[in-house]
Amino acid sequence: MTELAYEDFTPGRVFDLGTTVVDRDEMLAFSRRFDPQPFHVDEEAGAASIFGRLAASGWFTAALWMRAYADGVLARATSVGSPGGDEIRWPAPVFAGDELRATMEVLEARRSRSRPGLGLVRLRALLHRGDELVYSSTFTGMFGTRDAQ
Amino acid sequence: MTELAYEDFTPGRVFDLGTTVVDRDEMLAFSRRFDPQPFHVDEEAGAASIFGRLAASGWFTAALWMRAYADGVLARATSVGSPGGDEIRWPAPVFAGDELRATMEVLEARRSRSRPGLGLVRLRALLHRGDELVYSSTFTGMFGTRDAQ
Repeated sequence: MTELAYEDFTPGRVFDLGTTVVDRDEMLAFSRRFDPQPFHVDEEAGAASIFGRLAASGWFTAALWMRAYADGVLARATSVGSPGGDEIRWPAPVFAGDELRATMEVLEARRSRSRPGLGLVRLRALLHRGDELVYSSTFTGMFGTRDAQ
Repeated sequence: MTELAYEDFTPGRVFDLGTTVVDRDEMLAFSRRFDPQPFHVDEEAGAASIFGRLAASGWFTAALWMRAYADGVLARATSVGSPGGDEIRWPAPVFAGDELRATMEVLEARRSRSRPGLGLVRLRALLHRGDELVYSSTFTGMFGTRDAQ
């Protein structure tokens, strides 16, 4: 259950979170509900946009990374949530059918001064399509320490 | 259609994007698909967590703001997308039934040096429950200039 505690998030450690394929119907349903800009919901508008094709909402892309992180790390970690992040980037558009590889890298880790038993870990989220980066984010995860379990 | 061009995003301008009520079923469906951490999918786990109750995924909260922004601004703007942001914060948990007010503030605006006809606008996204801030984000929006329309 909790094989990953604060102490296991050592700076430089990289987690491979596996691959996910962008499902066209789900991508469109997400856009229609949360981000109905023409280039996210209409093929022709996508083709005429700077993306060149119908493109995923960046928030859908972020959500796909989140699921990979939840499955690959959080499901076996002492996570207690996240207060937020410092960066979110969509350097290239994501398209239906893309296979994306999710990774997570530990940037920094420190024990909480105000909350004993808790550590704050700065993490870098990445999604690649082949060699091309399509999503990156830097955020803070809060994890229980092993001695507090 | 495009009543809001780059020139209309003047620093300090605030857009009221209206209110949205957090639907419990949709909140749960989102968590199950994209962020299935126990405190996002299970009442008891939520009650035992630092949130004190079943809490929304922060990505669901972000997506709710995005929809309000798409409806209130982007649907009548010359938007061509966003390369990303510099900050994302969830200072308080969001719960089913919450009524959230979305606003957007223009922080900075400058014309693109590399792409004539395009302007880059730094925007601040906010969601409040009453007086309490539950979500904030700072990001860049790209908008066509009026003279390029």
